[in-house]
Amino acid sequence: MDSLLREEIFKQAIEWVMEAGNTIRDKMNNPLDIETKSNANDLVTKLDKETEQFFVAKIKGKYKDHFIHGEEGYGDNPTSLDGTIWIIDPIDGTMNFVHQKRNFAISVGIYHEGVGEIGLIYDVMANTLYHAKKGQGAYKDDVKLQPLPKKKNINEAIVGMNHFWLCENRLIDEQVMQSFVKDIRGTRTYGSAALEFAFTAEGIVDGYISMGLSPWDIAAGVIIVNEVGGSTTDIDGRPVNLLEKSAILTCNTAFQKDILKYLKKGRK
Amino acid sequence: MDSLLREEIFKQAIEWVMEAGNTIRDKMNNPLDIETKSNANDLVTKLDKETEQFFVAKIKGKYKDHFIHGEEGYGDNPTSLDGTIWIIDPIDGTMNFVHQKRNFAISVGIYHEGVGEIGLIYDVMANTLYHAKKGQGAYKDDVKLQPLPKKKNINEAIVGMNHFWLCENRLIDEQVMQSFVKDIRGTRTYGSAALEFAFTAEGIVDGYISMGLSPWDIAAGVIIVNEVGGSTTDIDGRPVNLLEKSAILTCNTAFQKDILKYLKKGRK
Repeated sequence: MDSLLREEIFKQAIEWVMEAGNTIRDKMNNPLDIETKSNANDLVTKLDKETEQFFVAKIKGKYKDHFIHGEEGYGDNPTSLDGTIWIIDPIDGTMNFVHQKRNFAISVGIYHEGVGEIGLIYDVMANTLYHAKKGQGAYKDDVKLQPLPKKKNINEAIVGMNHFWLCENRLIDEQVMQSFVKDIRGTRTYGSAALEFAFTAEGIVDGYISMGLSPWDIAAGVIIVNEVGGSTTDIDGRPVNLLEKSAILTCNTAFQKDILKYLKKGRK
Repeated sequence: MDSLLREEIFKQAIEWVMEAGNTIRDKMNNPLDIETKSNANDLVTKLDKETEQFFVAKIKGKYKDHFIHGEEGYGDNPTSLDGTIWIIDPIDGTMNFVHQKRNFAISVGIYHEGVGEIGLIYDVMANTLYHAKKGQGAYKDDVKLQPLPKKKNINEAIVGMNHFWLCENRLIDEQVMQSFVKDIRGTRTYGSAALEFAFTAEGIVDGYISMGLSPWDIAAGVIIVNEVGGSTTDIDGRPVNLLEKSAILTCNTAFQKDILKYLKKGRK
């Protein structure tokens, strides 16, 4: 993508993400909108849809030749990565939205001919924007994120993962994952894939594995993690597929091979 | 404890906690103090000790007949709960301190003749104080926390817990805990016992279980969770022992019995 065009789209995308975030925050803070748990469930469903529709209207209005791939299905549901595609999760971390009223994010990844150009992950309630442009580093608001340390052993790693990896599951022998958990330094579970990618880029965790992520869960995160020297693959070490759901590992490349070795050992 | 005296101690304790927090933040933000991981390790060890010494000097200077029970051992290491005891964790969430430079807390619980009177949990980097006085409700800064919902099923619960519950361990059959994880709505792992107590009181999680907590990890949290109608016991349902390390469950009382049933079923 032409760098001037990328800059223009980047600024525009941030503007829309901020506008969408403001709307969500306003509704979250309106007691009429979110009094009870069932209301919170209804609200997140409604806001998920409205936010995606907002992006679709804005993008289609300004960039008529761009495609949209969104969780709620209001986009083009593209079957290839040809052209320019916005891959959008309007609210990532739905359970956090409902239960915690925080710790959820808007995730927007923009790809051109299959190449990740722009990644935005907006932690709505914290009002914190993680952002990256290809080849230009990653930022948390206006602070540039440091490259991930090149020397780090797996036994020093904190890995984001949910607890189902350690229960009987369709992908991996849970006993292998139990030994993995004992061999690393620590685990964390935050409940938002987009934020766990952002945290990986920031070094809050050193990696994140998830059993089933859709393109919109990872599209922005892949780009942001790339820009600090991290890497994202499926759990078999293959390049991510942005058209299908898959099990994903993103992490510091220093011990990527070591994590993949555990995953291979346990793979069903 | 006399309520006027409690009010006086409460204000004094907050002042000291804030002062200690400021010192920690200053050192965290000083690049000379925290450039590398090994420096971060050294720094937390140093700050842990210095912060506890700060509290000991202040408390012994003003309240000569009060006792102190602190993680770093500069207190009185009391063998009973007679009199007034300050139970202090100067930095709870050491791994978060080192790796994340956030998500750690100062925890101060003040007990009189075995009764929890004052609980303070200060999230240092977020500058957020969770606080409670016996019988007067719990607060997050100046916002009163709502009582926990009286009707909530275990299958609606998000529980804070680490991943070792699902690995072979000395306390509980891991298979029972794997079924537990599948039966509840979700799990989270934040890496600070004090903050997970605070999050339980706030409703960010609905409960928290940990295999090995010391008195200073829980002393403040027990009081704060109490004030929103939650309850803390050991994993066998017995009252907490503030003189010994134990495995702990704190949660909404609505499904406390249900969680204890799982724990009993798997208990070794």
